[in-house]
Amino acid sequence: MKDLGGFIARAKECNTGLEELPTLTPFVVEGIEVGKLKPKFVEHVRRFPDVFVVEGEAARGRVTLAAGLDSCEKRSAKVAEVLAQLRAEGVITGWRDELYPVVPSYYDQPLLLVERAAATHLGIKAYGIHVNGFVRDAATGAVRLWVARRSLTKPNWPGKLDHLVAGGQPHGLSPRENVEKECGEEAGIPPALAATARPVGAVSYLTISATGYKPDVLFCYDIELPADFVPTPQDGEVQEFRLLPLEEVAYLVATTTEFKTNCCLVIIDFLIRHGYITPEQPGYLQLVALLRSGDCS
Amino acid sequence: MKDLGGFIARAKECNTGLEELPTLTPFVVEGIEVGKLKPKFVEHVRRFPDVFVVEGEAARGRVTLAAGLDSCEKRSAKVAEVLAQLRAEGVITGWRDELYPVVPSYYDQPLLLVERAAATHLGIKAYGIHVNGFVRDAATGAVRLWVARRSLTKPNWPGKLDHLVAGGQPHGLSPRENVEKECGEEAGIPPALAATARPVGAVSYLTISATGYKPDVLFCYDIELPADFVPTPQDGEVQEFRLLPLEEVAYLVATTTEFKTNCCLVIIDFLIRHGYITPEQPGYLQLVALLRSGDCS
Repeated sequence: MKDLGGFIARAKECNTGLEELPTLTPFVVEGIEVGKLKPKFVEHVRRFPDVFVVEGEAARGRVTLAAGLDSCEKRSAKVAEVLAQLRAEGVITGWRDELYPVVPSYYDQPLLLVERAAATHLGIKAYGIHVNGFVRDAATGAVRLWVARRSLTKPNWPGKLDHLVAGGQPHGLSPRENVEKECGEEAGIPPALAATARPVGAVSYLTISATGYKPDVLFCYDIELPADFVPTPQDGEVQEFRLLPLEEVAYLVATTTEFKTNCCLVIIDFLIRHGYITPEQPGYLQLVALLRSGDCS
Repeated sequence: MKDLGGFIARAKECNTGLEELPTLTPFVVEGIEVGKLKPKFVEHVRRFPDVFVVEGEAARGRVTLAAGLDSCEKRSAKVAEVLAQLRAEGVITGWRDELYPVVPSYYDQPLLLVERAAATHLGIKAYGIHVNGFVRDAATGAVRLWVARRSLTKPNWPGKLDHLVAGGQPHGLSPRENVEKECGEEAGIPPALAATARPVGAVSYLTISATGYKPDVLFCYDIELPADFVPTPQDGEVQEFRLLPLEEVAYLVATTTEFKTNCCLVIIDFLIRHGYITPEQPGYLQLVALLRSGDCS
């Protein structure tokens, strides 16, 4: 795996569609830009002028909320009504019943809360947690990584390879609490073991997909698992777990698109932090820089 | 160490003076910008028109090399003559007799080679290696970090705290070869042990100092040392080594400027990768982003 071209390609696939940027309309709440909308979604929200106010067009315009919506509670309630209507019309699919905070950056107080399925339509910052679950051979030091195959019934990325544990970061849980909860729910990792997961940094990217604007930040974790631990799918989101040599995972990332795209960034970060990718490989610094292409805040 | 303000302050200290940017003149070789000069250094090189050609002024101008200098060898030889003269005049101090490649980015072929002491005057990209040498307690898992105190006779940063091993990245050595060489020279680490140093990523920053423009990239390494290994200063560059609890190192970084400034970035990266700083601490993402503020290429 001397040539880093495949890894660089995967990292770039997390940062696509930016040529559409001038066509998006900023979503502004309390004078602060917190998202961007595609032209089609602007037309959808324009039909609800008691909640959304559209001024001007595309990059020079903006979508704001109606003047009376002067608290997080009021904004969340009225926007939820609109989103429910758009869901009923089939505009918003993949409803999760999970609230995401709308924030300029992670540690700010949310300006409103919105259903997760609407996050990309509104182009808000979304956060997630990804856990690299690995086993180190006591004798040789060789590392294997637990890899999940997503259920074919998942609304997003069905059948793709995924991390042992990963999930969106909802309102009301800390990243640590979310990691421990998802460890239990997704892989049957008992609490005492889940508590050994270690935060190791973050990756960020920016994609404009068919649905909308995605400025995402993923908190990355490593968890070293005992050789005899076997994760078990708990919630039907995973069809199987396999323990693969790290070299095989690296090969899959570099030469295929089998992994869910954003997992590739987190795995490349793991390969860099654990010294499997080295500064002697041309493209190393480009790859390091690509891990935080998006607004990491 | 719940408040990350001190770490953020240290990271920002690696990225200062940028308000001077408009006053700097690009250094362009073969049509490619490879550095930036302060106004005073432009005046120094202007006196050698058979080597340096100055066109225009500041950000709108440029410093290039004379037309006949059409190879790396010719450029390096003629520029070396000018730099030697400026050294004789006392303009360039801290001569190292060490050549740095002048490159648009790390994996490019050098356009010329220049004496290390001139790097900041010419504002070229400079690379280095920093090695976190740590000891993990077998029973408790607690980590201690070896810290060097720089000799009072060093031309730069005398008496400051430093990594166990760190150094500039000269022409003609790979980062790995440089790490192993510096491990031996600076700390008496035997080759077999030095070979266990693991690359873990890179940090980048951009400072405009009194001397000039510094767009630096540091390749970061971790080396886990046996509890009974004691590093020994070999080359007079270090006055003493001490093994400090990681919490104490973190406290020193956050609350003092005892460490050489760029070491702070590498130590913060270590604290993040090893989970001593966590996403629950406000400012975490800002700190992660600050580790690669400069052009990481």
